[in-house]
This record gives sequence, C-alpha cells and structure tokens, in this order.
Amino acid sequence: MRRQPTVSDVASAAGVSRQTVSNVLNSPEIVKPETRDRVRHAIADLGYRPHASARRLRTRTSATIGVRLDPGVDGMAGSLLDRFLHALVERADALQLRVLLYTAADEQSELDVIDRLLEGADVDALVLTSTHYGDRRIDWLMEREVRFVTFGRPWDTSGPADAEHLWVDVDGRSGVADATRHLLGRGCRRIAFLGWPAGSGTGDDRRAGWRDEMRAAGVPEAELDGLDLALEEDPADGTAAARLVARLAPEPEAVVCASDSLALGAWLAIGERATVMGYDDTPVARALGFSSIAQPLAEVAAQALELLTEPPAPGEQRHRLLAPSLVLRGTAGGA
Amino acid sequence: MRRQPTVSDVASAAGVSRQTVSNVLNSPEIVKPETRDRVRHAIADLGYRPHASARRLRTRTSATIGVRLDPGVDGMAGSLLDRFLHALVERADALQLRVLLYTAADEQSELDVIDRLLEGADVDALVLTSTHYGDRRIDWLMEREVRFVTFGRPWDTSGPADAEHLWVDVDGRSGVADATRHLLGRGCRRIAFLGWPAGSGTGDDRRAGWRDEMRAAGVPEAELDGLDLALEEDPADGTAAARLVARLAPEPEAVVCASDSLALGAWLAIGERATVMGYDDTPVARALGFSSIAQPLAEVAAQALELLTEPPAPGEQRHRLLAPSLVLRGTAGGA
Repeated sequence: MRRQPTVSDVASAAGVSRQTVSNVLNSPEIVKPETRDRVRHAIADLGYRPHASARRLRTRTSATIGVRLDPGVDGMAGSLLDRFLHALVERADALQLRVLLYTAADEQSELDVIDRLLEGADVDALVLTSTHYGDRRIDWLMEREVRFVTFGRPWDTSGPADAEHLWVDVDGRSGVADATRHLLGRGCRRIAFLGWPAGSGTGDDRRAGWRDEMRAAGVPEAELDGLDLALEEDPADGTAAARLVARLAPEPEAVVCASDSLALGAWLAIGERATVMGYDDTPVARALGFSSIAQPLAEVAAQALELLTEPPAPGEQRHRLLAPSLVLRGTAGGA
Repeated sequence: MRRQPTVSDVASAAGVSRQTVSNVLNSPEIVKPETRDRVRHAIADLGYRPHASARRLRTRTSATIGVRLDPGVDGMAGSLLDRFLHALVERADALQLRVLLYTAADEQSELDVIDRLLEGADVDALVLTSTHYGDRRIDWLMEREVRFVTFGRPWDTSGPADAEHLWVDVDGRSGVADATRHLLGRGCRRIAFLGWPAGSGTGDDRRAGWRDEMRAAGVPEAELDGLDLALEEDPADGTAAARLVARLAPEPEAVVCASDSLALGAWLAIGERATVMGYDDTPVARALGFSSIAQPLAEVAAQALELLTEPPAPGEQRHRLLAPSLVLRGTAGGA
C-alpha cells in the first residue's frame, strides 16, 4: 500500500514549515494568501487528507484519548486547563477522536489509573497537562511505549527520555519579554514583576522574560531585585497581592504578572495609576479591562493531536514551542 | 439472587428521606449526629453498599457516561459547568464509572453524536446540561429509552415526558429569595435586581425569587419595576452592567444579581457604597470580596449519578431540587 502523505510531505512540497501547513489547516486567516494558495496546491497535488492520520489512530482500537481532570481546581488559573480541555475536545471531535476523563489524587494513583485504562484498551493515547519538576509520568510512559504528548515541556533533564517525548508548550518567557519590551517602548522604566516563589518551571520562565528585558534596558540588578515580587498563588484573595504591590515605593509605572489572579491584586492596588499586565487572558482580565498575555490554546490542542496522530519520524522535531500574544487594553494600548 | 438493598430501603428503615441518606453518604457533616447514626445503623443492618448500584451499571457494558462539553464557552458563567464537570468526574471515578466528552454545534448534531455513541456502546448513559425551553433532546432520549439525567429541570411542560425524566436542579428562586430576605433583614429596602432579559428559564426563576420577597416586604409594584434591570450577559465587558447600575437614582442600597459576571459590573459601579450579591460564587466573587449564591455542585453530581445508577421505582420521586447557599462576605456579612 502506498504511504499516506503527511504534513511533512506537504511542507516539503510547498517549501514551507510544518507549522505553516498546520496554520493553513487550522487558522488559515493568519497565513499570507500566496503562501496559503501554495500550501493548498501541495495538499491537492499530494492528495493529503488531514483526517487520514487520525483515522489510522481511530481504526486501531478505541480512538480515545485519556486526559486527567483534577478535582476542584477552582481558581482563575484552573480555568486555563478547562479552556484547553474545551479546545482539545473540539479538535478531537473534528478528527473523530474521543476524550475520556479520569482523576487521580497523586502521581502514583495516576499511574495506576493509566495502567488500568491502557489494559482495558479504554484509551489509546494520553494528553498530559501540569508537567512539573521530577514528573515521574514521563519515564513511566516512555518505558511502556505508550503514545502520549504533554501540554508543558519537561522542566528538568534528568532522564534521557526528556528530550525524546512529544510535547507542546507556550513560550511564556518570550511572552513576558514582549510585554516588558512593549512597556519599556512606551517610556515606562519602573516596571515591577509579580510572580510565584522560585522553583516552579513555569513561574521561573516567565520571571526570566521580565529580567531579560529589564537588564537589556540597563536597569541595575539591585533595582531589579527590589521590583521582583513573589507570592504563593491564592485565587481566593486578591488582596494579598494588592498589599504586596502597595508596599512598593516609589510606586511602579507598570506591573507585569505571572497570572491574571496576581494581576487582579495589582489592579486593585494601583490599577487606576499604573498599567497592569496579566497572564492567561482570563474573563477577569476582559471584564476589568486590564491587559494580559494569551496562550494560543486552540493551536496547542491542534498541535498536540497532530503529534499524536502523526508521530514525527526519527530526526524530526518532537516538540512545538508556540508564541503567546499580547492582548492590550486600556492605558496599555496607547502608543 | 437476593435483591441488593437500595437507598430507598435504607431511608425506610431509618425513617428518613432518600435525600437524608444521600447526605449521610456524601456530606455527613450537614446531618445531625443522631440522624447520622440512625442512617448508619440502617446501612449496616441492611448490608447496603453504596457502590453496588454503580457496579450494576458498570458491569453492563462500557460503564461510561457521555457529557457534552461546549467549545469555547469562555465566560465566568461557563466556568460553572466546568466546575460541575470536575465534581461529576470525581464522583464518577469513586463509583468506577468513566466520563466521555463530546461536542456538538447544535441540537440536531448533538442528537446525531449521541446516536453514534449509543450505537457503538461507547456510553451507557448521559448527563445533559444546559436544558432550555423547547429542549428536543428530552423527548428524543425518552422515546429511545436511553438512560439519562439532566442537570437542569425542564423549563416547559409541553410533552408528557417532562414530568417523567430524571433531573437534578438547584432552586435558584429560593436562593435569590434568601439573599433578598437577608438584605431586607439588615434594613435594606431599596434593593435592585440585575438579571437577564425575560425568556430564560433560569433567569426568570431567579428574578421571581427577588420579586417574591420584595412584594412580601410591601415594596410597591411600580418601584419594583424601576429596580428591575435586565442585560444580555457579556462576560467580556463588566462596564455595560456598571453603566446600567450607575443610572439608578436614587442609588440602591444593594443589588442582587443573576450571575457573578453581572455582579462584577454592579461592584464596579457602586461596590464601595452598596452591597452586591452575585450568583455562582465564582473565583471572581472571592477575589473581589463580594457575596454570592453558591450551587452545591458536588451534591448535584452525586445525586445525578445516584439517579442514573439507582433509577427510582414507579411512583418514587424522579427529580431532586437542591437548595443553594448564601456565601456572605464584606459588608453583607454584618448583622
């Protein structure tokens, strides 16, 4: 039987990247018309069918993907994974794949649950979220040759598996750097960062984006340390973050935050006088009108399922790092 | 084989309602100690096993429940159904039942999807959310004798099926009435209501709770009409609701709202001077510190699965209307 053409074949034929082919399939409006036409011609010439790969996975066994849903994650941050789940289910549905949910109280019970799901052929593949330092699931799944992809890159490189497994992530560091650069470009110099205590991969990455740009703008290290605030996330209480921000003197002209929950606190403290930049573009940011950094969740879902249904050949890129976008509102939108 | 005892058997033996037995199993802390002991004795005497009924469903075919996940419902209101999903998955997991997600663009495609899922024995039963006037799914499922339960009561009584199908809902009217009575008891008289335009079952029901109490307190009909505000839900813009509330003169002492999104608008407009009462107790209400009405989602999930796994006998109650609770914060908490 002739091999079915893949996204890589289309990319080669059209002289573009896999990412561009994926964009034409998933978000055609962001691709230049000439490029779009070239990719569509290649698709037609090769007889590429976007769904063929999904059908391969589908006809194998259950055509079902397992996803863990954590109980009662009830903050604004939790809503990001819910929004990702919506995007994933919608995308999976278009590929006639199903999504089965499970819960697990801890890592060991998650491995037990996955074991049972695989044994019963209830799921063929997994999408893991909330990757973290020392995530045991990765090696466990690699050893058993289970098909899986993570939303979230590996945050340590202890095992050889880390470089090998399939992942999609969003480049938080570049997102926060873009936000900081935007504020510097508007003449702000005293820009604070409100994040989580050091030690979380995601949090440290976002903080680094702010530090990078502030250093590049010549802000001395001692001043940076004074502008660098850390707080445990507590979505139940915006006032803790507000108190922390209110203590800064002189007051900053802008506050870049690692989450919209933290940004809400900053907004309560100095939102009338300073620009507040959140992260995740939650309904709260929209409702209160502060700027935020949006993760491209539909694209994360599309790429994760593409990696699962069309596993890259040896030597091909095994992960996708996507760029977030700035959503500017109110005073931050000014020139 | 001897019939397995059911919740009804335990209720009869202990001389309490099914609801009380369910409370002892799911939320024992809300049951009086004497009652709790009596129910527990009945459970032990009869050899009732809470999981036996789930096992019956489980061993039948796929032990999987289908739930629709709507794409991109990205407001604060959407988060309610996400929180319900978390509660449902957690509860289903404890009963060793699985939850499979599907999406559908409209009612007809939802029926098509359900048809396929049932045909392939992918799901044994369904939990439907977002019931509405003229909901065709109910009759369709009744005709096919599909096992299902809805979170949400039928809002019209056109078909004979409406009284028959299994549902769990939260009594929004009594929740809003409780909130209004609480405010009246604290001496507020000028209490506005901010809800949705007439025609939504849920919205009209909540508005009625406010009207009931205001009338009972002797507020004239003309004044009520002036305090009754309606706005299409737009979670992207808290300022529309704020503008509407700001137009009221004289300013109300309190605003009871049909949702936390609307309450956010009221809070932005007059939150410093008036008491604001939201609905759904979202993270936003907690973060900003306004009061809200909380739906008992864990209990809704538990009752929905109980109805599915232990279908009531003919003549037994086929639905459960649960009471929401007031979560008082800030000024609303005062005596």
